[in-house]
Amino acid sequence: MPGLTIGDTIPNLEVDTNQGRIKLYDYIGDSWTIIFSHPGDFTPVCTTELGIMAAYASKFAERGVKLLGLSCDDVKSHNEWIKDIEAYTPGSKVTYPIIADPNREIIKQLNMVDPDEKDSSGNQLPSRALHIVGPDKKVKLSFLYPASTGRNMDEVVRALDSLLKASKHKVATPANWKQGDPVVISPSVSNDQAKEMFPNGYQTIDLPSKKDYLRFTNV
Amino acid sequence: MPGLTIGDTIPNLEVDTNQGRIKLYDYIGDSWTIIFSHPGDFTPVCTTELGIMAAYASKFAERGVKLLGLSCDDVKSHNEWIKDIEAYTPGSKVTYPIIADPNREIIKQLNMVDPDEKDSSGNQLPSRALHIVGPDKKVKLSFLYPASTGRNMDEVVRALDSLLKASKHKVATPANWKQGDPVVISPSVSNDQAKEMFPNGYQTIDLPSKKDYLRFTNV
Repeated sequence: MPGLTIGDTIPNLEVDTNQGRIKLYDYIGDSWTIIFSHPGDFTPVCTTELGIMAAYASKFAERGVKLLGLSCDDVKSHNEWIKDIEAYTPGSKVTYPIIADPNREIIKQLNMVDPDEKDSSGNQLPSRALHIVGPDKKVKLSFLYPASTGRNMDEVVRALDSLLKASKHKVATPANWKQGDPVVISPSVSNDQAKEMFPNGYQTIDLPSKKDYLRFTNV
Repeated sequence: MPGLTIGDTIPNLEVDTNQGRIKLYDYIGDSWTIIFSHPGDFTPVCTTELGIMAAYASKFAERGVKLLGLSCDDVKSHNEWIKDIEAYTPGSKVTYPIIADPNREIIKQLNMVDPDEKDSSGNQLPSRALHIVGPDKKVKLSFLYPASTGRNMDEVVRALDSLLKASKHKVATPANWKQGDPVVISPSVSNDQAKEMFPNGYQTIDLPSKKDYLRFTNV
């Protein structure tokens, strides 16, 4: 199945949301944005996911990151369902817009179709897709989960922290990295450059190959 | 960019690995399998990732899950690099095969190309793609991370536990779920069916919509 993937530029779609009609590029502006789909309103996993997204709103806001939900239900349904989400996650408000895609056109263009899931009328449904889109409107990272697996919003925050760090410094984050852990210096940076770029120094791991590619630092 | 996505059946490719030539379907057999690519041998993030995959080998084995790595380097390179991985992650052995794809054909067919990353000769490189493939050879879940973000293998294990649970019971796992937490009953299960299927009972959350769709149980 063809589909948007990392590195691709998202199309500048004009979409209906529960907060009015928006153009994707206008909404994203110069921010990092998380666009995430869910199979349907008034379904169990989705209610827990959008509730946690609302509860984590301050974590995303303090990182300057915008949120944008999407399902194939209409705006009226979104507005009714939000009452359930907020009741299930007390103290949280769904302040981010949710796209309404009853014609199933947007989910195709954003690679959010679940080929296995259909609603009771046989219509296609979105998967639990989540794209982290950069200020350049390109997809930087994608999660594609099936309907049965609720996403882990802590992993979304972790991945976002990695992307933000790599956008500021010539570094990458190792496996299982968490904010505050050491990072690795990109292979494109020579040792001489690394000394200038990272004045607090770095540690090179001694490996059997004697190739000095595994260099840790803190930024 | 076209690409394999969730719900698609992976092609039955015959591939070279550091453990010899294999056909994907023969290797997968009746198991769940994690196929994961990395941009290159002798690079920093990849070394930490494959080390953690080796360290977590027993977690995957006890779940009956097979591992299969992939990069565009050749078998000789893989074998040399494994010495570095094992030195960096003491006590761990890279017992899973790593596909060698120097012609960049397999990464295209498995949707593992990073459109932004090129090697020093201008050749395409794989992203940090990870597909969880079911015994039916279909992609159940995909992570597509850029070169700068090392994956979180705890999230891989979490997602796998969710998929395995949903393959055995008519349940799904809520957002941020971890093994041992309550699960939700699938919307396709009526309340009468739920009483039979879950003899220990379930809890229905009271929501403003008065729709009884959010039902928690333990299995």
